[in-house]
Amino acid sequence: MYQLDELLSLLEQRIKTIELPQTPKQLYEPISYSLNAQGKRIRPLMLLLAANMYNDHIEEAVNAALAIEIFHNFTLLHDDIMDNAPLRRGRPSVYARWNSNIAILSGDAMTILAYQWLARCRTDKLNILLEEFNKLAIGVCEGQQYDMDYETQDHVSIENYINMITLKTSVLIAGALKMGAIIGGAPKDDCDKLYDFGIRLGIAFQIQDDMLDLYGNKNFGKPIGGDIVSGKKSFLHLKAMEKATENDRNILAKLIQDTSLDDQDKISKIRALYDYYNVKEEAVYAINRYFSEASDIFNTIDLPIHRKTEMKALSLLLLNREK
Amino acid sequence: MYQLDELLSLLEQRIKTIELPQTPKQLYEPISYSLNAQGKRIRPLMLLLAANMYNDHIEEAVNAALAIEIFHNFTLLHDDIMDNAPLRRGRPSVYARWNSNIAILSGDAMTILAYQWLARCRTDKLNILLEEFNKLAIGVCEGQQYDMDYETQDHVSIENYINMITLKTSVLIAGALKMGAIIGGAPKDDCDKLYDFGIRLGIAFQIQDDMLDLYGNKNFGKPIGGDIVSGKKSFLHLKAMEKATENDRNILAKLIQDTSLDDQDKISKIRALYDYYNVKEEAVYAINRYFSEASDIFNTIDLPIHRKTEMKALSLLLLNREK
Repeated sequence: MYQLDELLSLLEQRIKTIELPQTPKQLYEPISYSLNAQGKRIRPLMLLLAANMYNDHIEEAVNAALAIEIFHNFTLLHDDIMDNAPLRRGRPSVYARWNSNIAILSGDAMTILAYQWLARCRTDKLNILLEEFNKLAIGVCEGQQYDMDYETQDHVSIENYINMITLKTSVLIAGALKMGAIIGGAPKDDCDKLYDFGIRLGIAFQIQDDMLDLYGNKNFGKPIGGDIVSGKKSFLHLKAMEKATENDRNILAKLIQDTSLDDQDKISKIRALYDYYNVKEEAVYAINRYFSEASDIFNTIDLPIHRKTEMKALSLLLLNREK
Repeated sequence: MYQLDELLSLLEQRIKTIELPQTPKQLYEPISYSLNAQGKRIRPLMLLLAANMYNDHIEEAVNAALAIEIFHNFTLLHDDIMDNAPLRRGRPSVYARWNSNIAILSGDAMTILAYQWLARCRTDKLNILLEEFNKLAIGVCEGQQYDMDYETQDHVSIENYINMITLKTSVLIAGALKMGAIIGGAPKDDCDKLYDFGIRLGIAFQIQDDMLDLYGNKNFGKPIGGDIVSGKKSFLHLKAMEKATENDRNILAKLIQDTSLDDQDKISKIRALYDYYNVKEEAVYAINRYFSEASDIFNTIDLPIHRKTEMKALSLLLLNREK
């Protein structure tokens, strides 16, 4: 069994030594730039941990983990163009540092690189791994499309939102877990359980992300209230819209789209309404509920406790909880 | 053995019945729009023909052929954004009809759809097919990057150009042929020969495309001289630059970048220089040379003549030649 920090070191070292061609420079430099940004490596770690729950030999899983990490970074490259996001992990995003065309094409090449790493996995499982990978990849695209649709849509329900983040965030985590389990040789039932665990964990993680955007105290270097400034229909916003009186709903709908307001003014006006309707508590409640569902599923996996410790630790870390 | 037109009908029918999810609409409608444009289907046809040279059962090859066609159409979606090309096959391109973000994301989804079709291929060959597919896919990205690089680069040699079109055009044709041969069960040697045949054929095809842009008489509905108007460094242009005196080279370099000139004026000025340096004849010579190399390779494939007839016919058709 590997410990979490051992797996993270292994992963960082393997990412650092990915060999990319030297030319064309404008295609491969942005890829290297993107992969070497200090990401949290959550998704590939999940994959490795799932494999390691069932098998001490994780070398094969590393290939799939790299595929997942490269794919995840590709989605960030393209999302940043679509969302006009000039910053990523405290540095200029690829499209901002180079240009949109370069970000489009480097992203395309990253998708293919991801499949190249996947293709290194053991032949007799490649078929099923490819199927899982395709499923999560198309899910992420669908989730991103719903996210863009909702930007201009008047009414978005919490149910719509959960469906959207399930596709955009959860299926990648869930799919990574399932792929790891498959490579590790887990029984089919456990593969499905880890998938379902990942779906719930991903939802809890995304709602928490929305919550911390406004109510976090450090917020990973991002400015507090960024979602409000950019007019994002976050969990907080949708919950407030759900609970508000018709009058307050109209005010909220107008405020969130208002681009004439000073940032701090917009944040404090909207936050006052969020606070009035206790949406922070609603978010915490939802996070706890999804996290507890995730834990319940995880606990039914029949393995010696020491083989489950590290995965449990990562899921707690993900939700910023103490052990 | 199938005849060319039978394979084309089969292909069109299979493309028409590709089932796409209904939602998110903005993700899947552009994909359906793109796949149902009347393309020439050259690449998937090549794949089917290669498979059919060795095997009468081509059902499995159809899956790979669809993967190739979907991938090819994905590259067009993204290329049109990068090249600011508002028209494609006589209709608005996806980014022009919807918007860039939709074209980016639909294109991304198409890449994954392509891999989904590929994943339907018989398991025991999936590994090698995936490897070939990844190789051609990354080649196309590299070719597109060189193409963009050359737009702003002062000196581009004919050698640079051949390398660029090999990646951008030929590896997709060559890879499709090799994949078809693999699925059909061809000997390894024949797979490689068909690949090399495809490389030469693709180069001849691309130089012809450049030549017809200015010297063609119908030109598939595109305006005559479009490459000159858009300042493209075509084979014609690079050959003229290679042969011209220093003085004429400077004139050509200025003219091709001149956006202040009236279109017809720009075309006739540049065409006069191309004519003076006989670049049309140089292009015809190069097309013949690459086509003849392709034929020579094809002729060494040891199969009964009737199994090679349809592939020969398609290659002749591609180069607008009589049988």
